[in-house]
Amino acid sequence: MIRATENNEYYELTSPTSLPKASGFLWNEKMMIHMNCRGYAVAQFMQPEPAKYSYAPNLEAKTFMQPEQPYYAHHPGRFVYIKDEESGDIFSAPYEPVRKLADSYTFAVGKHDIRWTIESDDISIEMSLRLPKADAMELWRIKVTNRSQKQRKISVYPYFTVGYMSWMNQSGAYVEDLQGIVCSAVTPYQKYQDYSKIKTYRDKTFLLADHKPAAWEVNHESFEGEGGLHSPSALQGETLSGGDARYETPVCALQYRLELEAGAEQEYRFIFGPAFDEAEIEQFRQHYFVKRNAAGQDGFAAAEQEYAAYVAEGQGNIQIQTPDAGLDNFVNHWLPRQMYYHGKTNRLTTDPQTRNYLQDNMGMSYIQPQIARDAFLTALSQQHASGAMPDGIILHPDAELKYINQVPHTDHCVWLPVCMSTYLDETNDYSILEEQVAFSDDAKTASVLEHMNRAMKWLMHDRDERGLNYINQGDWCDPMNMVGYKGKGVSGWLTIATAYAFKVWADICEQGGHAAIAAEFRQAADTTNAVANEYLWDGDWYARGITDDNVVFGISKDQEGRIFINPQGWALMSGAADADKQERLIQSVQEQLETPYGVEKLAPSFTAMREDVGRVTQKHPGSAENGAVYNHAAAFYIYALYLVGEKENAYRLLRKMIPGPDSEDILRRGQLPVFIPNYYRGAYKQFPRTAGRSSHLFNTGTVPWVYRCLIDGLFGLQGHAQGLQVRPQLPADWNEASVTRLFRGAELHVNMKRDASVNGVKVYVNGDLIEGDIIKDVQAGAKYEVLVKLP
Amino acid sequence: MIRATENNEYYELTSPTSLPKASGFLWNEKMMIHMNCRGYAVAQFMQPEPAKYSYAPNLEAKTFMQPEQPYYAHHPGRFVYIKDEESGDIFSAPYEPVRKLADSYTFAVGKHDIRWTIESDDISIEMSLRLPKADAMELWRIKVTNRSQKQRKISVYPYFTVGYMSWMNQSGAYVEDLQGIVCSAVTPYQKYQDYSKIKTYRDKTFLLADHKPAAWEVNHESFEGEGGLHSPSALQGETLSGGDARYETPVCALQYRLELEAGAEQEYRFIFGPAFDEAEIEQFRQHYFVKRNAAGQDGFAAAEQEYAAYVAEGQGNIQIQTPDAGLDNFVNHWLPRQMYYHGKTNRLTTDPQTRNYLQDNMGMSYIQPQIARDAFLTALSQQHASGAMPDGIILHPDAELKYINQVPHTDHCVWLPVCMSTYLDETNDYSILEEQVAFSDDAKTASVLEHMNRAMKWLMHDRDERGLNYINQGDWCDPMNMVGYKGKGVSGWLTIATAYAFKVWADICEQGGHAAIAAEFRQAADTTNAVANEYLWDGDWYARGITDDNVVFGISKDQEGRIFINPQGWALMSGAADADKQERLIQSVQEQLETPYGVEKLAPSFTAMREDVGRVTQKHPGSAENGAVYNHAAAFYIYALYLVGEKENAYRLLRKMIPGPDSEDILRRGQLPVFIPNYYRGAYKQFPRTAGRSSHLFNTGTVPWVYRCLIDGLFGLQGHAQGLQVRPQLPADWNEASVTRLFRGAELHVNMKRDASVNGVKVYVNGDLIEGDIIKDVQAGAKYEVLVKLP
Repeated sequence: MIRATENNEYYELTSPTSLPKASGFLWNEKMMIHMNCRGYAVAQFMQPEPAKYSYAPNLEAKTFMQPEQPYYAHHPGRFVYIKDEESGDIFSAPYEPVRKLADSYTFAVGKHDIRWTIESDDISIEMSLRLPKADAMELWRIKVTNRSQKQRKISVYPYFTVGYMSWMNQSGAYVEDLQGIVCSAVTPYQKYQDYSKIKTYRDKTFLLADHKPAAWEVNHESFEGEGGLHSPSALQGETLSGGDARYETPVCALQYRLELEAGAEQEYRFIFGPAFDEAEIEQFRQHYFVKRNAAGQDGFAAAEQEYAAYVAEGQGNIQIQTPDAGLDNFVNHWLPRQMYYHGKTNRLTTDPQTRNYLQDNMGMSYIQPQIARDAFLTALSQQHASGAMPDGIILHPDAELKYINQVPHTDHCVWLPVCMSTYLDETNDYSILEEQVAFSDDAKTASVLEHMNRAMKWLMHDRDERGLNYINQGDWCDPMNMVGYKGKGVSGWLTIATAYAFKVWADICEQGGHAAIAAEFRQAADTTNAVANEYLWDGDWYARGITDDNVVFGISKDQEGRIFINPQGWALMSGAADADKQERLIQSVQEQLETPYGVEKLAPSFTAMREDVGRVTQKHPGSAENGAVYNHAAAFYIYALYLVGEKENAYRLLRKMIPGPDSEDILRRGQLPVFIPNYYRGAYKQFPRTAGRSSHLFNTGTVPWVYRCLIDGLFGLQGHAQGLQVRPQLPADWNEASVTRLFRGAELHVNMKRDASVNGVKVYVNGDLIEGDIIKDVQAGAKYEVLVKLP
Repeated sequence: MIRATENNEYYELTSPTSLPKASGFLWNEKMMIHMNCRGYAVAQFMQPEPAKYSYAPNLEAKTFMQPEQPYYAHHPGRFVYIKDEESGDIFSAPYEPVRKLADSYTFAVGKHDIRWTIESDDISIEMSLRLPKADAMELWRIKVTNRSQKQRKISVYPYFTVGYMSWMNQSGAYVEDLQGIVCSAVTPYQKYQDYSKIKTYRDKTFLLADHKPAAWEVNHESFEGEGGLHSPSALQGETLSGGDARYETPVCALQYRLELEAGAEQEYRFIFGPAFDEAEIEQFRQHYFVKRNAAGQDGFAAAEQEYAAYVAEGQGNIQIQTPDAGLDNFVNHWLPRQMYYHGKTNRLTTDPQTRNYLQDNMGMSYIQPQIARDAFLTALSQQHASGAMPDGIILHPDAELKYINQVPHTDHCVWLPVCMSTYLDETNDYSILEEQVAFSDDAKTASVLEHMNRAMKWLMHDRDERGLNYINQGDWCDPMNMVGYKGKGVSGWLTIATAYAFKVWADICEQGGHAAIAAEFRQAADTTNAVANEYLWDGDWYARGITDDNVVFGISKDQEGRIFINPQGWALMSGAADADKQERLIQSVQEQLETPYGVEKLAPSFTAMREDVGRVTQKHPGSAENGAVYNHAAAFYIYALYLVGEKENAYRLLRKMIPGPDSEDILRRGQLPVFIPNYYRGAYKQFPRTAGRSSHLFNTGTVPWVYRCLIDGLFGLQGHAQGLQVRPQLPADWNEASVTRLFRGAELHVNMKRDASVNGVKVYVNGDLIEGDIIKDVQAGAKYEVLVKLP
């Protein structure tokens, strides 16, 4: 029903109804498409803001990607209807809109393609989607095979939805010369100042075919008729009726009439996407369908290969083999892919939240560290001279801060050292600290060291008289917009996180040769931890914050929101919690926040507005920040557990985050195990029916932290100024594991084995036992065989 | 197929597929619902901005009402499924979602209700919708009758869509105590400042039933299942499954299981709408279903009657009987109703465009002149001390200028005298000129006379050196946002309209006893007309404007947009056009702009962007402002024709605007003849297939001008300072017409008859021939028999 292919390159689903929201996603330099197993699609491309070329049937709000996106009959999608010309029977692939259960069905999500194979009434349909590397368009193949013993007469109708493009101007027509359909629209606008942008938009939607169709339909109303999408009226005729759409909802529907001998097959290829004008579409046609390279390939086939190579560049820097096959599969194939997506696309926004941008690029440190380096410098160039970081990083000259980035949050500085440390671990490139960068409000440059110091100083001073950090209208990952908007409320998490940031920054400074600064911030971390313990420790865990009116919350006397995960994990990281506190808070998390699907963000979920806390308490119980298993927060907790050596707890929770391994778990979560969603539905004790469901949203800061959990924690193969530090934390029931680690240009084959004869970890490099746990002098280009004996 | 009922109170359609977008609308003090013949609905209520309680299946953009609104399978709607428990067959009323053609079908649009009668397989379903007067909710009756000769076991499933309420928080549950379903949501917001508004919103959607259901379904996904809306999975079971919706798309579906003897019937009543909380819903239940008045009626039945009375208050002040039955029907029943809707609701916006607000209230002068009076004072209280009028009138303290009201337009002052003149015609209330009103930027009050003078002076000075009025980013009814944004371009129409405004204002001043001002503006009108003739007359018609770069457009050498209707009609009104010019321009309009569906706004429609004109040229050819038969503009042209005595031309065009009279015309336009839409699709010569289609949008300034065409023009029964002026302009082939005219509290029964014996019009009041054509000394409360003899 749900299975990985033999080489683990694909996850397959064999029924569209068992996991109706199962999906895969592809992206390239210009776009993203989230493809549902039933044929529904959500696709966006950048111009520069995210735009559509296949629209909803009504005027859709422009907003961020929605969790648990609902589908409905006229949801945008890519489908093909098949009609048996003799019987008149129809079915559709992949499943929608006809919803006839096929005799066999496979939906296969791969790293660089998404495929279906459907067989119904002895006709098989193979569909596949790939993208080119740098054009915003979809490359489709649709192959029809007659699996019966007799000749079959069938009509094949690719049906690509276009939807309600614009109330200002929309139309569609078949263009003979292009062998395709071109739908035109004008993006509505009110102010003449916007015209100069609008006029450059790729407002056309096209479908190009490599085979000349017998007929077409461009008018959605004519296509659907009274039959409905499950039985469109247009399919009742011998041929589609042609015609056009004039201020009517357009559609891209073609018809091919086939006589297929027994066993014969016919493949069609299509390109679907946005374009500026017909001239550009003609260029696409020439490039993808007409011209051929030296190998005789047309651009379409070449682009498919190029895209596979592009995705392969994001393979990450560990390949693992462990007793846990599900983990191996996810880590070797899917996790780095998801991390690469974030680093390449910045989640298809022109103003990523600062913390997202830094963390997504922390992930890129493992894949393409030069991109990460540039990103850190970009972010710092938008820092205020005061040290404050903006709420979002502007990536395009026309961009502006939108949505939540208009609400001031106080945590952005924390992420600078936390994320940069991974870049330094991987590259040892301390020269970045000497780079000269200006400020957003001061053209005079300063070194990155100075920028970072100012950020830390900003955190040190944006505090109340007790030494607790102000929360203002919010900090990371809880929209607690009313705790501190009057200027008094403080954040428990942020205070603790600041201590951790100081500690990390001190370590960086120490390694970078700035011992005095290191000492200053180590001292500051200690002071901050002491403050946290004085004002935030509640007996068994840390409070989440203190409101403008001096009410401590996230504590044992609260009925809802008694305990929040973030202060607990970060108190382990910052060193605030001593051994006793560690034990108590870990126990509290396990009892109150752990569920079969991971640790919840807070519990019990708020079921009613708490006005002194704010918006988070109005979110649906168990959703997003209000009690979901919010994987980003959970990943930090796991990371923290590794930091304090709680390897069994850490591995157990890590395993709950990765979808799978068994079908029952996959069904509950509702997605294939090809990405970690931003959350699984929580409120497990309050609403068990819905708990565990995936948000189906693959934009999340979780993934680089899971990678860090693996590298710094589970496998303990973390970079260090002197080399590669080896401190594995394998679970007790693993007797061995092997990791191929790419590190600073070298390739290390690390075999970890239990050995009853050793007391502590022993590391052998190319057969020689080394002193300590750091493999020094790692040479780029070299290969190393590393044996790690574990007690 | 399409027919008016005997008393003309309803328009009926007997097939849902012949006119698939046929619709009616109801409104009250708080809401509006646009109900489609197939069961789809668009409903909005004010809190204070327009809000939904039955949502689209996706996140819908908040915007103004869309023309030619597309429908789709999951579009919001109100439906009832019927299942024969013995055969398992299902159908749905009114038509969607099953789309099974009934054995008989009637959709009846009335003034205060909308009804369907559907019979399928010997089961008849009668559905009706009414509103209460002052609550935002829908009152539904659903009656099921067994028309067969045997007992029938059926299940009745009211299915009211709720849709995607909110990504922040949504849920639904059946509430036993309320005997209904309550769906809850939180309107998403980002900024804490918005919370104080959000917290007061009626964010719940409820369905209350007067009969206890056998079962219910609140979860849309469970309801629809794999069957699809045309055959929902939930209907396959014996009973709906109950349960709830937790951050899942909610639905309000109930099930009643019935054993109906031959001929037996069962009626159910439902209330559907928004609410603040369950306590409020309980109040609704008590008021509408539980408590009874002295007559034994419950609130539901009483509200239906109260609503009918409320609508009846808007009946207008002429009842006509003419040789044209279609005209009689429309004018006696539907036209004043549509005008009343505008006056009562201000189109469900909190910031109506100033010109719309003034014209909608001009219409209210015919119905409830006190409301019009208050509106003029409200508008003038928002005037700047400079005389400039704002782009929109703020009607709620929390409202702000939105959409197009953020774009500066230069015509708003024109509408003040033009609209006030009707108020004065009807009421003779010149005391309004003495009212003291402040300015938006000056608390010191001034008389309305002074306000109006300043508005006129503003028009007199917002001109270039030639005396042509600046257009800035636009004026009325063409989004020509790039003609004059550099501050130089001028508007031909506005210059001419300004002359007309001066003339009207001069007339008002003269009647109001301000002869010197009258003389000043009469002089100014003449000067302005002379300027228009010097710079704008193109030989056979007037140009539309002159761009920033001094390019005259809307002239004979243009390929597209050669001629615009507005300058032509207003030149007839202003007196700019002498007899020769009148003849030429009327001829030009007839040749170039007249179509079977009325006169187009401009022709030929622009098919490509013309950057020096702007946005109008990017709108779809034949749509809205770009060449549609824009009824508002057309109505002015007709009015202008009456002003210059072109009664045959005027009547012909008037008749084209009113949908009907024959089925073929109704089918082409696609709507029942119960309202005038804001446009019929134009570009008749370029795109004949789609020309004539209704926008289905009943928000339009057209209606009060059609009323003025009837009162001031066709029937010539216009108010005057001295009484009622009688100057009919009946078409030549009418031998008689009678009008009951309510005027200043009196009721005049006016019979108009051709009489070969008279040279000019002769007016007899109560049998006595009067001198001149003004019936003087009209006494409130009195009735008059008026005979008008026409040559």
